[in-house]
Amino acid sequence: MSKKPKFAVFGGGSWATAIVKMLCENLDEVGWYMRSEQAVEHIKTEFHNPNYLSSVEFDVTKLKLSNDINELVAYADYLIFAIPSAFVETELKTITESLEGKIIFSAIKGIVPESSLIVGDHFFTNYNIPFKDIGVITGPCHAEEVALERLSYLTIACADEKKAKIVADVLSCEYIKCTTSDDIIGTEYAAMLKNIYALAAGIAHGLGYGDNFQSVLMSNAIREMKRYVKKVHKMKRDINGSAYLGDLLVTGYSTFSRNRLFGTMIGKGYTVKSAMMEMNMVAEGYYATKSAYHLNEAKGKKKAKIPIITAVYDVLYDHKNPKKVFKKLTEKLN
Amino acid sequence: MSKKPKFAVFGGGSWATAIVKMLCENLDEVGWYMRSEQAVEHIKTEFHNPNYLSSVEFDVTKLKLSNDINELVAYADYLIFAIPSAFVETELKTITESLEGKIIFSAIKGIVPESSLIVGDHFFTNYNIPFKDIGVITGPCHAEEVALERLSYLTIACADEKKAKIVADVLSCEYIKCTTSDDIIGTEYAAMLKNIYALAAGIAHGLGYGDNFQSVLMSNAIREMKRYVKKVHKMKRDINGSAYLGDLLVTGYSTFSRNRLFGTMIGKGYTVKSAMMEMNMVAEGYYATKSAYHLNEAKGKKKAKIPIITAVYDVLYDHKNPKKVFKKLTEKLN
Repeated sequence: MSKKPKFAVFGGGSWATAIVKMLCENLDEVGWYMRSEQAVEHIKTEFHNPNYLSSVEFDVTKLKLSNDINELVAYADYLIFAIPSAFVETELKTITESLEGKIIFSAIKGIVPESSLIVGDHFFTNYNIPFKDIGVITGPCHAEEVALERLSYLTIACADEKKAKIVADVLSCEYIKCTTSDDIIGTEYAAMLKNIYALAAGIAHGLGYGDNFQSVLMSNAIREMKRYVKKVHKMKRDINGSAYLGDLLVTGYSTFSRNRLFGTMIGKGYTVKSAMMEMNMVAEGYYATKSAYHLNEAKGKKKAKIPIITAVYDVLYDHKNPKKVFKKLTEKLN
Repeated sequence: MSKKPKFAVFGGGSWATAIVKMLCENLDEVGWYMRSEQAVEHIKTEFHNPNYLSSVEFDVTKLKLSNDINELVAYADYLIFAIPSAFVETELKTITESLEGKIIFSAIKGIVPESSLIVGDHFFTNYNIPFKDIGVITGPCHAEEVALERLSYLTIACADEKKAKIVADVLSCEYIKCTTSDDIIGTEYAAMLKNIYALAAGIAHGLGYGDNFQSVLMSNAIREMKRYVKKVHKMKRDINGSAYLGDLLVTGYSTFSRNRLFGTMIGKGYTVKSAMMEMNMVAEGYYATKSAYHLNEAKGKKKAKIPIITAVYDVLYDHKNPKKVFKKLTEKLN
């Protein structure tokens, strides 16, 4: 690796766009892969992403933009993936360049459907990336607020804290503060689970439950998350840290969250299918629910008590009546 | 005490009104003291509180209403106080009836300014009520949602869990679930501190900080609350329970919270005095800030690390520039 490592972001969505913006605050050159040739051309000529965070203007002389994923894999030392988990494997399959020696950071929340693994595990298991070269970038962080340069905090997790520090340094700027952590498994699971809880918050909202219940739900959710993550990867962590509780709150209380909106539609009586069609996008919590539920079930007697995830699973996958399921859930919360 | 204990609520605000409503779901007779003779007369003839939760209609045949505090002190076995902490001592001073043998439950959040004590301690120290006869009713619960009969959870704390259970039973109904606890000190402090954090959230909002920061602030607030409460009363408690984290969230995320609104005005540049005059009411977090800060300071070397409360104190009482104080605070959060 050269003295100054090269960074590339993979993805064309709002979170990818926000990360590119942060990197541009510190680096002279930032690689950026996005699938859409049209979007690449638009950025080159109009200086902003046509589809997401369009208010963010880029100094395109800094951008190494391409819709050829292999060109940017070859280019970068640090590969930051910010592609929705449902689509990431499709993109990864097109990579023919070697990933050997590359450092992979995931800014993806959720489970890779093809492998039922969180992204870090997926890279380790299916792409032979050693854990010391795998990291996670996690919030609490709405990309929209990065666009507005509103102060936000990120947690950068990697088993090799030196690499976490390097990524933290290139992302930090006047409006971004970064903390490092060595809990990649815990932060990834937290980032995945919070989408399920946001979905649950949406269902409750759609059913007519109010703010009092929402706070009880979130208070129970963080305790459930603690139990879940402890079963998956036991280590000393403060579940009330920003990467866990903070991330849960920014999503669970956001009225803009896709997951919360999807849940609200379900609570209001939409079927899963019609809610998906209406939204015309993927709510990551939908897939996360299935994976999180089955991962826990597979633990048999050692499984964690997860009444909220189970309720969401019952509604989304067993097509049970949300009103009845949540009425039963309310008996289990305190 | 007779077989069926008698209950009376003291206070005329929205929280008192909500508690009377809950009690009326289970009891044939409910005592209700409010200072305003006019309000008492209005309820008797129009069946609702003219000033708060006016949509709640009462079966007045059940109400033993009076603006004579001593009449209701004499009447009831369980006295539930729901008078703002800033005014409670003025009311208590008018009591000439004996409080001996009475069971006192406080639904008051905050410190009694005259004694700088939380309400439970105040009754113990200044009214010789033994701790086994003192209890606390705490949320997370906006009174407005009780009026709408939206599902809410209360925590009823008393050193004597039997008494907690009795109060829990008379408050529980289709839309109210009650948990009991023996942590009266912890729940009272949590209920007081959360108002300061709501005020901090308001200041941040007024200064232009966004949702990302709000979630980081709340994540740091619950950790600070944990440290604070542990110093005051060390015992095994889960700070993520509804009475602590839940109560923090319902207030911190409420755009209707007086404390948050007061903070927002301060953040937007109002002076403390002008914000108070504009709001024409008391934000309990204002007094709580002073008390919480000094109580902690008095601990000397044993004091807890409370950067958020300190920042609010600096703004409200040292009249420091909110923008500068919060900029400094952001460096201390993670």
